[in-house]
Amino acid sequence: MDKAQLESSYTSEKERFISELTEFLAFKSISTDPGYEADCRRCAEWLKNHLSQIGLKAELRETIGKPVVYAEREASPGHPTVLIYGHYDVQPVDPLGEWHSDPFAAEVRAGRMYGRGAQDNKGQLWYVFKALETLIKAGALKCGVRVLIEGEEESSQSIGLTKSLPAWKPGLKSDVLMVCDTGAMRPGVPCITMGLRGIVYLEFRLGGLRYDFHSGALGGVVKNPATELARLIATLHNKDGSIAVKGFYDGVPAPNKQDLALAEASLPSEAALKEMLGVEPLGGEAGHGIAERRGFRPTIELNGLTAGYQGPGSKTIIPASATAKITSRLVAGQDPERCLKLILDHLKSNAPAGLTLEIAGQGVGGPAITLSSASPLIQFARGILDQIGDAPTQFTWEGGSIPVVTELCAASGAEPLLVGFGLEEDRIHAPNESFSLDQWRLGYRYAGLLLSKLSEYKGKA
Amino acid sequence: MDKAQLESSYTSEKERFISELTEFLAFKSISTDPGYEADCRRCAEWLKNHLSQIGLKAELRETIGKPVVYAEREASPGHPTVLIYGHYDVQPVDPLGEWHSDPFAAEVRAGRMYGRGAQDNKGQLWYVFKALETLIKAGALKCGVRVLIEGEEESSQSIGLTKSLPAWKPGLKSDVLMVCDTGAMRPGVPCITMGLRGIVYLEFRLGGLRYDFHSGALGGVVKNPATELARLIATLHNKDGSIAVKGFYDGVPAPNKQDLALAEASLPSEAALKEMLGVEPLGGEAGHGIAERRGFRPTIELNGLTAGYQGPGSKTIIPASATAKITSRLVAGQDPERCLKLILDHLKSNAPAGLTLEIAGQGVGGPAITLSSASPLIQFARGILDQIGDAPTQFTWEGGSIPVVTELCAASGAEPLLVGFGLEEDRIHAPNESFSLDQWRLGYRYAGLLLSKLSEYKGKA
Repeated sequence: MDKAQLESSYTSEKERFISELTEFLAFKSISTDPGYEADCRRCAEWLKNHLSQIGLKAELRETIGKPVVYAEREASPGHPTVLIYGHYDVQPVDPLGEWHSDPFAAEVRAGRMYGRGAQDNKGQLWYVFKALETLIKAGALKCGVRVLIEGEEESSQSIGLTKSLPAWKPGLKSDVLMVCDTGAMRPGVPCITMGLRGIVYLEFRLGGLRYDFHSGALGGVVKNPATELARLIATLHNKDGSIAVKGFYDGVPAPNKQDLALAEASLPSEAALKEMLGVEPLGGEAGHGIAERRGFRPTIELNGLTAGYQGPGSKTIIPASATAKITSRLVAGQDPERCLKLILDHLKSNAPAGLTLEIAGQGVGGPAITLSSASPLIQFARGILDQIGDAPTQFTWEGGSIPVVTELCAASGAEPLLVGFGLEEDRIHAPNESFSLDQWRLGYRYAGLLLSKLSEYKGKA
Repeated sequence: MDKAQLESSYTSEKERFISELTEFLAFKSISTDPGYEADCRRCAEWLKNHLSQIGLKAELRETIGKPVVYAEREASPGHPTVLIYGHYDVQPVDPLGEWHSDPFAAEVRAGRMYGRGAQDNKGQLWYVFKALETLIKAGALKCGVRVLIEGEEESSQSIGLTKSLPAWKPGLKSDVLMVCDTGAMRPGVPCITMGLRGIVYLEFRLGGLRYDFHSGALGGVVKNPATELARLIATLHNKDGSIAVKGFYDGVPAPNKQDLALAEASLPSEAALKEMLGVEPLGGEAGHGIAERRGFRPTIELNGLTAGYQGPGSKTIIPASATAKITSRLVAGQDPERCLKLILDHLKSNAPAGLTLEIAGQGVGGPAITLSSASPLIQFARGILDQIGDAPTQFTWEGGSIPVVTELCAASGAEPLLVGFGLEEDRIHAPNESFSLDQWRLGYRYAGLLLSKLSEYKGKA
């Protein structure tokens, strides 16, 4: 199937595609919050049924965590098999008051679909499945397809899928791992993600006070958990923005110069970046450029802080406890388990006397992955992508993490191919997440062409 | 009226006293939250009507803030006049889930009254008003009485009352300012509060990011407001716990040795203190004892921290902004306006480049006040208090603040007398605030005897 045929099917089927996606987006599949357990399962069941309807053999696979949607279609003899990975779970929606429309009643406004998951990942998955459906209907799908859609990517662990892979391995053999959960740097310009940072997370609490004390009666008598939490967090970084955790940078290589040049070329201008961010791009370590800090250097980021009174006005208390949530992004050369332990050790050895330190949650996502721009698969994908956009394909070393990718490659024998059409403006993980329908259409073209032409791909050199 | 007569009236009227207090406690007079504006006014009106019923000439006085309840009764010729100060407003009640009973449907359990304000200050006010009522009914009240009950003490400003004092001054002339809004150190043992720390408050926010960013996509690119807030807070104190704000200790005197010895004598044992606190008493500045840190040294305390995701599990964001609420307790020799400015200057000069610093709220309570244990009024009160408790009267330099006390003394010409029967176990400002009925009874005895015998007080030497 060629680009013109895909365009024609998009034009005639667009309304239905959007209406189905709206159904998919209505499920409150927030995996990190146990309150949405049943919503996650209903979402997975709906997706399984949908994949059956479009012509795949689909089933729900139980795991130690959330169920995984598995579906497959055998390859015509002599044709390769693609493993499609994605996730049906979404991020929490708070602060809910900042949404301009119900996050679970998606709607299209000015050419964008608004709703939680509209891009990450339900929206991006949808152009893959719709392209697949189009090819199957037209009898144009020769390559084999395996689909693994999990429900625990947003809770940073992918634990159910990861722990099931050893048992499922025999049935997963594939040639290419297709992941459409990444972004592009500019509208209309395709982009291949060449690296993903790894991730670990941690939630910790300082406390021990029997309750919130009066800040006058006991100020100066007990240590203040909120003040001490701030002081403890402040020990995580040096003055120059580098991470102060001992041994954290061990084994982190300097980036390959060619890769760094490609990453830098894909960045928006400094002015455009400032406009997008609202502030100067002064994060991370002094002495490293933006592209390097984003794709090739680790970070420790605070994701949330909670202590004491948060309502209007003042309340004169010493909070009984104070809590921080952090995630750390890792790069090549860093072992996640080791890094998590280093952070834990750092917290323990810097925790204040006179309060208790409690580790309220911790988890290891996966290690970082890095691809070579010279590989045949990347060059093959570039050939397709150069046909569909407004400008030549870009290459980015993304700061985000898809922890399970390394494990999926190991289990399936496939080479990863990370191409997505998300943009920073989509506000994934934030209120008012959305996805441009123009970008969705690019994704549909890409998925249709890739799945059509994959038979021509000769595999690893 | 003597102690035996007061005991007898307590025994016969106790049920009614408690039932009326329950009515008073039902008003949601949370002054810091504008959502309770109407509740505050209803509370003030109810109190005014009650004071009329017990025989005072009462009225509601409008201010630029919440209304003040004023009531009076002229002295018999040649007798002194007491000015009774207190507040009808209460602290917020969150976290509401931690209350074992509705904070505004007060109830007695095991000899304690539970509810917001049960002690601070409605419960303590109630023994004063009930003692007053008993004396009036018995024709035993000779001294004059003026009552000023305001509704903005808990919002740290007392702004309405303070700004009205110049206009009201001609009618406020009194000899003794009676304040029952402080605590004792041990059950059954009366305690005179000899000093109150001053207070200023501040709410500040770091932000500037257009929204919550994905912590992978932009981690290392922008500064993280939560991390930077922690780092900024950490600059407020030195390693030894002392305040690092330049000039903050200027003019702070070393405590008088006799006062410090009295303050130390009133402290519970280290073991009892640890049991009460849940942690070791390691707060404040190294090199100063507990009694000194509590009553004679300033503090800067975090009262609340808010940033990013606070629900269960993790959310991989860089929070768009991060907010801290602080209050600073001041001691003799510190000017509140100056101290607030020093803290503001410190925050501004330590704020990180690449983010914006917003001062979301600020206010000046009052300066610290200190009394002399040798004064005739203190000795007179001690004589009364020594009759009513289980042990000789104690003296404490309290860490809390009642900002308006200095202004009231200046406007009325009265000498302050700070005696209260609260205990740390009352959990004022925290969930499950309560007040022991035994302590309430001590307060009733104290107020009854003081108001009876005040005629014998000869005034300042």
